Amino acid sequence: MSGNTLGHLFTVTTFGESHGPAIGCVVDGCPPGLALTTADIQAELDRRKPGTSRHVTQRQESDTVEILSGVFEGQTTGAPIGLLIRNEDQRSKDYGNIADTFRPGHADYTYWHKYGIRDHRGGGRSSARLTAPVVAAGAIAKKWLHEKFGTQIRGYMAQLGELPIPFVSWGEVPNNAFFAPNAEILPQLEDYMDALRKDGDSCGARINVVAENIPVGLGEPLFDKLDADIAYAMMGLNAVKGVEIGAGFASVSQKGSEHGDPLTPQGFVGNNAGGVLGGISTGQPITVSIAIKPTSSIRTPRPSIDKQGNPIEVQTFGRHDPCVGIRATPIAESLLALVLIDHALRHRAQCADVRVETPVIPGAIAGSVKP
Amino acid sequence: MSGNTLGHLFTVTTFGESHGPAIGCVVDGCPPGLALTTADIQAELDRRKPGTSRHVTQRQESDTVEILSGVFEGQTTGAPIGLLIRNEDQRSKDYGNIADTFRPGHADYTYWHKYGIRDHRGGGRSSARLTAPVVAAGAIAKKWLHEKFGTQIRGYMAQLGELPIPFVSWGEVPNNAFFAPNAEILPQLEDYMDALRKDGDSCGARINVVAENIPVGLGEPLFDKLDADIAYAMMGLNAVKGVEIGAGFASVSQKGSEHGDPLTPQGFVGNNAGGVLGGISTGQPITVSIAIKPTSSIRTPRPSIDKQGNPIEVQTFGRHDPCVGIRATPIAESLLALVLIDHALRHRAQCADVRVETPVIPGAIAGSVKP
Amino acid sequence: MSGNTLGHLFTVTTFGESHGPAIGCVVDGCPPGLALTTADIQAELDRRKPGTSRHVTQRQESDTVEILSGVFEGQTTGAPIGLLIRNEDQRSKDYGNIADTFRPGHADYTYWHKYGIRDHRGGGRSSARLTAPVVAAGAIAKKWLHEKFGTQIRGYMAQLGELPIPFVSWGEVPNNAFFAPNAEILPQLEDYMDALRKDGDSCGARINVVAENIPVGLGEPLFDKLDADIAYAMMGLNAVKGVEIGAGFASVSQKGSEHGDPLTPQGFVGNNAGGVLGGISTGQPITVSIAIKPTSSIRTPRPSIDKQGNPIEVQTFGRHDPCVGIRATPIAESLLALVLIDHALRHRAQCADVRVETPVIPGAIAGSVKP
Amino acid sequence: MSGNTLGHLFTVTTFGESHGPAIGCVVDGCPPGLALTTADIQAELDRRKPGTSRHVTQRQESDTVEILSGVFEGQTTGAPIGLLIRNEDQRSKDYGNIADTFRPGHADYTYWHKYGIRDHRGGGRSSARLTAPVVAAGAIAKKWLHEKFGTQIRGYMAQLGELPIPFVSWGEVPNNAFFAPNAEILPQLEDYMDALRKDGDSCGARINVVAENIPVGLGEPLFDKLDADIAYAMMGLNAVKGVEIGAGFASVSQKGSEHGDPLTPQGFVGNNAGGVLGGISTGQPITVSIAIKPTSSIRTPRPSIDKQGNPIEVQTFGRHDPCVGIRATPIAESLLALVLIDHALRHRAQCADVRVETPVIPGAIAGSVKP
Repeated sequence: MSGNTLGHLFTVTTFGESHGPAIGCVVDGCPPGLALTTADIQAELDRRKPGTSRHVTQRQESDTVEILSGVFEGQTTGAPIGLLIRNEDQRSKDYGNIADTFRPGHADYTYWHKYGIRDHRGGGRSSARLTAPVVAAGAIAKKWLHEKFGTQIRGYMAQLGELPIPFVSWGEVPNNAFFAPNAEILPQLEDYMDALRKDGDSCGARINVVAENIPVGLGEPLFDKLDADIAYAMMGLNAVKGVEIGAGFASVSQKGSEHGDPLTPQGFVGNNAGGVLGGISTGQPITVSIAIKPTSSIRTPRPSIDKQGNPIEVQTFGRHDPCVGIRATPIAESLLALVLIDHALRHRAQCADVRVETPVIPGAIAGSVKP
Repeated sequence: MSGNTLGHLFTVTTFGESHGPAIGCVVDGCPPGLALTTADIQAELDRRKPGTSRHVTQRQESDTVEILSGVFEGQTTGAPIGLLIRNEDQRSKDYGNIADTFRPGHADYTYWHKYGIRDHRGGGRSSARLTAPVVAAGAIAKKWLHEKFGTQIRGYMAQLGELPIPFVSWGEVPNNAFFAPNAEILPQLEDYMDALRKDGDSCGARINVVAENIPVGLGEPLFDKLDADIAYAMMGLNAVKGVEIGAGFASVSQKGSEHGDPLTPQGFVGNNAGGVLGGISTGQPITVSIAIKPTSSIRTPRPSIDKQGNPIEVQTFGRHDPCVGIRATPIAESLLALVLIDHALRHRAQCADVRVETPVIPGAIAGSVKP
Repeated sequence: MSGNTLGHLFTVTTFGESHGPAIGCVVDGCPPGLALTTADIQAELDRRKPGTSRHVTQRQESDTVEILSGVFEGQTTGAPIGLLIRNEDQRSKDYGNIADTFRPGHADYTYWHKYGIRDHRGGGRSSARLTAPVVAAGAIAKKWLHEKFGTQIRGYMAQLGELPIPFVSWGEVPNNAFFAPNAEILPQLEDYMDALRKDGDSCGARINVVAENIPVGLGEPLFDKLDADIAYAMMGLNAVKGVEIGAGFASVSQKGSEHGDPLTPQGFVGNNAGGVLGGISTGQPITVSIAIKPTSSIRTPRPSIDKQGNPIEVQTFGRHDPCVGIRATPIAESLLALVLIDHALRHRAQCADVRVETPVIPGAIAGSVKP
Repeated sequence: MSGNTLGHLFTVTTFGESHGPAIGCVVDGCPPGLALTTADIQAELDRRKPGTSRHVTQRQESDTVEILSGVFEGQTTGAPIGLLIRNEDQRSKDYGNIADTFRPGHADYTYWHKYGIRDHRGGGRSSARLTAPVVAAGAIAKKWLHEKFGTQIRGYMAQLGELPIPFVSWGEVPNNAFFAPNAEILPQLEDYMDALRKDGDSCGARINVVAENIPVGLGEPLFDKLDADIAYAMMGLNAVKGVEIGAGFASVSQKGSEHGDPLTPQGFVGNNAGGVLGGISTGQPITVSIAIKPTSSIRTPRPSIDKQGNPIEVQTFGRHDPCVGIRATPIAESLLALVLIDHALRHRAQCADVRVETPVIPGAIAGSVKP
């Protein structure tokens, strides 16, 4: 139950700090017999890695992953999969002045008071760099889910700071550094980021994630509800301050007659449920939306205190993402994949013998589900 | 790691169905030496119980709790605390037609497909009645937190359907059936609910919860972040579709210079963080907001299917809350208390020896924190 | 991970004290669709209950179990199964003098120092009475294992104090109060116990348990080995001081050429492994042997101290088993069943898709396995 | 709850195979502020490493450990500690013929049937090489326990095959390759091993471990008893077939008046309890004894089957320990340390506020405790 392990049956235990020698994780409980190579994992890591556009941190990391165990002759063996990524670009001197002061909105203050000691270099353990092992583990989960159920998990940026990004098509997402599903809005996004960078400020973002082809029945009824575990995983992603499933906060002002998705022999009509009812998957697409706060490490000077409690003014230099949300899409996808594989294994543990006669209705009828 | 247990060190394992003989829970890991009586628990249960106004279900349950173990001569012993609540008003015949059909927006469909068998009486295990043991357990957590840290956990209704409820004062909350912090708006809320009931429809709600006097340092850094565990607990509450911490979704369009709460020797200025930075409590009030969807059991007829997959029309009679959000406030408070006590115990397990020299700054300077 | 919960997927969370109002447990993770009635559970409880011969405690308890949840129309639903047993014969006054003194060999001393408070009535939480809920839960596990795999789990007394009990036949076991597999030795056992009782003393016992028809492949490779979890469960039974699997301590002086059970197309020859190799079941019978220490509550006076640390002489009156081993057989069987079902579920979670071409060889060839 | 993680609050998650690129572990939950260097860990690894005498495997491994995370400026930070050991001497060709056959007494057979795939090189995941990360993690636990409580954990070989090794003094243990507490018997042990090696056979061993200076109160009352968790950890060590605490199996033939260790104001008299009563530490030395079976990989030919189920004769060449017990002492010490630190953290989580007035009596009066 350590605080650095995600999952119950398919578990990911991570280690590492932003500027230590390496980061990585141990993936345990993976079903044996899954074809797996470094390339499968590297492809996902490359989607998240820094330095790929001027809108993200300029730290240079190849994020090259090494599989240390758990794979034999190209297949998972059921033994734990050790994954290692060496840190290559630790310029610790950039962070010298951070050691004795606290940044508004940053984990500096809480780590110091919790542990009485803090690896301040690049945020140490609290750095978003630690999402790389999560993405690596998520690549394995995604592959298994896809082979087993045909599951497809995709995300996109739905809002950048004050700019909503209307969904146009999934096809655009891989074509830009923002994971935006909309080509026309790209110049606006670029300008917005350029202005921010010039101001030494940062902004938030909203990311949506959708999982399609999910079997009905995943999730535990009372506490480990599928949506509860998704909320847990997503709120655990650095800088996330809000999570919605399906209609989310819009459901507050809906009527029951409007919110409940009707069932027809051809499928559900609508997906206000976001693919989860009573904590258990319906078979419809699972839709999640998350709010990411603006980065706390900015050049703009702000009032704060030092370790002795004296008032000071803080400015943060060094290499930081002006919007951590830009690289969050593959991470959110990975977290969703990790929750889903864990519940898929839990479900078959308890219910492998269940046979129901009712046909599972299709995920949703054409046109009724917005991503 | 069973799906009916909440927590890691202070655990709550619940059992029961809406119309079975009894519901209850086992609370394990409670520190010994806490003065505890049935009355401490009953007081919280009475805040949640049904039948107290015309706006909630008319089911008559006294929700009388019996302490079966773990308390000796008025004090907790450290042994598990068994809590039992007999169901008194099971009119199963009300639900006869539910057995073969699925209600839009209800867990009927998912339970049936997951388990191949379903206790349909009153929603069985998926009923909101199962929140009673959570409230009972939460009463113990609240009491310990209050005695140890002076912690106060309070919630209120912030929106009912389309009606936002401006915060006026905590003093009003216990005076009305809605847990509304605003006396003037009560006639509007009453009228809204009366109209809904007449229409045979239901509505959603937004509930805010605030925990004050929380020590700095609670929460694990990577996966069991304090806010992640809060999101997990809240999203696991029946009908919840969204969770926010601090500024929540509003942080998407904030700038970093605006979002980060400045630190001063007198305290934080503002609380966009909602009392959590990097997954660890700051010492400021923890602020949580949740979206509750409208009840799925309504009299309004809707298209659905039966167990054989045939199209039918569903209407639900029987006794249901037209807005489950009305009774959700004490439940959300309890869940927050349960997460906090668990993390308080986890924190001292690892960090009991930590001594930091920096003074902990006050929660917040006067006027800077809205509930 | 609470200390009163056994198992990972099929979990048993117990509560209660010897002289409180009730004892019981919550069984979570049970596969749905298992036919289950109170009678299934009561039959096992009756094998363990006190007062059935003059050689055990004369406390009168019917140990009547009530199923509170998780069963609907005679079948498990997949929801947690709440089980309740009311205590009926609490004569607390018998134990008055125990409150301020510590019995040599008893948990009195450690509970007091751990918790600073202690329910001393009848041993409180440390009483062997708390094995009743384990037996109740074990009855469910046994039934599922039997229906799923044809598993049969049986135990017997192999030694009573200084008297070894040669194995004659399983048929004798249910015919006597000792669970002895040997009718001829019964008069000796009776005399031995009568002499002990006259002397106000107590004795130990050795119990053997065997599980037959176990699928190959149960157990995790490194830490949750099947034999490790068996050792954990058995050492957790009150008064157990030693656990052996297969050849146990005899394997110390065996040669490798002698210990390793040869494989033949007809099956393993011998079972020094006790049905477990590398922590994973072989398909052979699983054989376990446990050492139970003599009861610590005896009439014989012994030196001890009181709560203030003063030297005193202790004598324990009241109703106690002079050999807790006599009623331990059904408990040890239950614990083995609980470990096996948990691993059966864990195994299919990870490995449900595994298909191997090698035929599973039979458990053992005729005559090669001693119980 | 993955099967490759040990512990609940101080957790060790291991990865790696005998002949893969590396082995290692993630240690999570370590209290912050512990001074820790690679040398602290290396010292323990060197006690376990292969190739140090002619009586153990001749595989050449320096077992050089790298700390990847969790330590900053010489102190633990509270973040997970990643430990990496590269495999240096993988001569996979030695094991070619093992791939298609099963060794009697080896995990070959069970791994194959569980996973349907098996890394056969050097035993893969089932190799005793995987105890190295456990020893590395144990070094951290030992250091913390020593600094916090003055705890000392030591083990020795008590029997080698048929040769009992009378305890003479702790001082001898580090002076010989057997961890024997007796210098005079060394020539006999050497001769015994030389004869075995000549015969191509193997033998078992008994190892005793003692932990001194343990606080009273560690252990959970019902299922996670201290002795239950010790039994679990020890039975999980490769090749262990039996575990005893205190008097162990000898307690079967003891009377209650003999077994219960009397309490006096000066301390307990005797230690039949092995330092644990009711699953909770008494403050006396914790004494554990384990039975290790003979190595299954031997040159002596034995009947077995191949993957197709055909009868064959098996002989195992390559580099194997003829008695895995010889290197088991530091591993058993480490496992005991890991269980103790986990319970020390669990105890203070629940009971940090407990204050009892009774003085804790000394561990044992002079002369009463044999190691």
